[in-house]
Amino acid sequence: MKYPNGIKKDTIFHNINYKNRGMDLEDDLNVTNQYYREEDKAYIYKKPTPIKIVNVDYISRKAATIKEAYFMEPSTTDYNGIYKGKYIDFEAKETKSKTSFPLNNIHPHQIKHIRNIYNHNGIVFLIVRFTTLDITYLLFGKDFLYYIDSCDKKSIPISYFEEVGYKIEYKLRPRVDYLKIIDEMYGGI
Amino acid sequence: MKYPNGIKKDTIFHNINYKNRGMDLEDDLNVTNQYYREEDKAYIYKKPTPIKIVNVDYISRKAATIKEAYFMEPSTTDYNGIYKGKYIDFEAKETKSKTSFPLNNIHPHQIKHIRNIYNHNGIVFLIVRFTTLDITYLLFGKDFLYYIDSCDKKSIPISYFEEVGYKIEYKLRPRVDYLKIIDEMYGGI
Repeated sequence: MKYPNGIKKDTIFHNINYKNRGMDLEDDLNVTNQYYREEDKAYIYKKPTPIKIVNVDYISRKAATIKEAYFMEPSTTDYNGIYKGKYIDFEAKETKSKTSFPLNNIHPHQIKHIRNIYNHNGIVFLIVRFTTLDITYLLFGKDFLYYIDSCDKKSIPISYFEEVGYKIEYKLRPRVDYLKIIDEMYGGI
Repeated sequence: MKYPNGIKKDTIFHNINYKNRGMDLEDDLNVTNQYYREEDKAYIYKKPTPIKIVNVDYISRKAATIKEAYFMEPSTTDYNGIYKGKYIDFEAKETKSKTSFPLNNIHPHQIKHIRNIYNHNGIVFLIVRFTTLDITYLLFGKDFLYYIDSCDKKSIPISYFEEVGYKIEYKLRPRVDYLKIIDEMYGGI
């Protein structure tokens, strides 16, 4: 059983590990998605982390403690849901690099998933935060797949995000308003 | 921390607890969804069971053992994905009753979720198997919500499934071909 790349130690000790900025990308997206739900705008959720349960202390129907379990590699992206009747799907990642987004952040299964969703006319994208620079980009699945198919499978330079991605400005509410970019791109939906 | 109604002991000791029929509904849906993916027909996944992780033995970046964790109540349905560009969302439940489907099988959060997805034009439904009778029905969200809003909040009689639901016949591949019913209902998609 392996500890997958995509799962950071930070996410486990979530409550005690805050970055200087105050919130990490996952927190920002959680409050953003909650805002969208409160506004009845979109229903988009983070999927639970996949876990293989090996041993459970099964005290009663109402109380059970998992005593042994392992992290599993996700076979899909982390976030999906519905916006204006359309299927929305994305993966969110942070990198400390100032120059490029390392592709070992994204599992092969997830790349395949992004391709499948794109081919089936879902709205699929990445949200990538360059934490050192404190800049967050949205990169559509189409542009992500174009890059890894025709250029480089190891990393995507930040210049590619600047050129074909969409910068997401921070706001008070919602904090990371990625649906604004979806509205601009898919005006008619 | 409670052991939510929706999680059966069966699902934990999954490999050693098979019913006489051979497979339970969750297994049937897993192989059905896998078949849809292999046929490039639809990308629909079961969400991982939500777990609250309390203690992790963090040996290395590649190996970590969860030593203490608890089951959480799901805030959405268990299955979602994309079919012909449309957002698909459903919950699957078994009951041993021969006469009705007890609604304590569905959490209030899940009912709210079904309502939200229905209002936002997603394709949302329940798949309910009456295990003693060995009959599986699909009930659309619209009809489910109509019943609980206007009739009874405790259970739905099997006659309601017979009248407004759709019987799903077992097949060899895929075993529980629920998308056939979606095709019949949403012919144009």
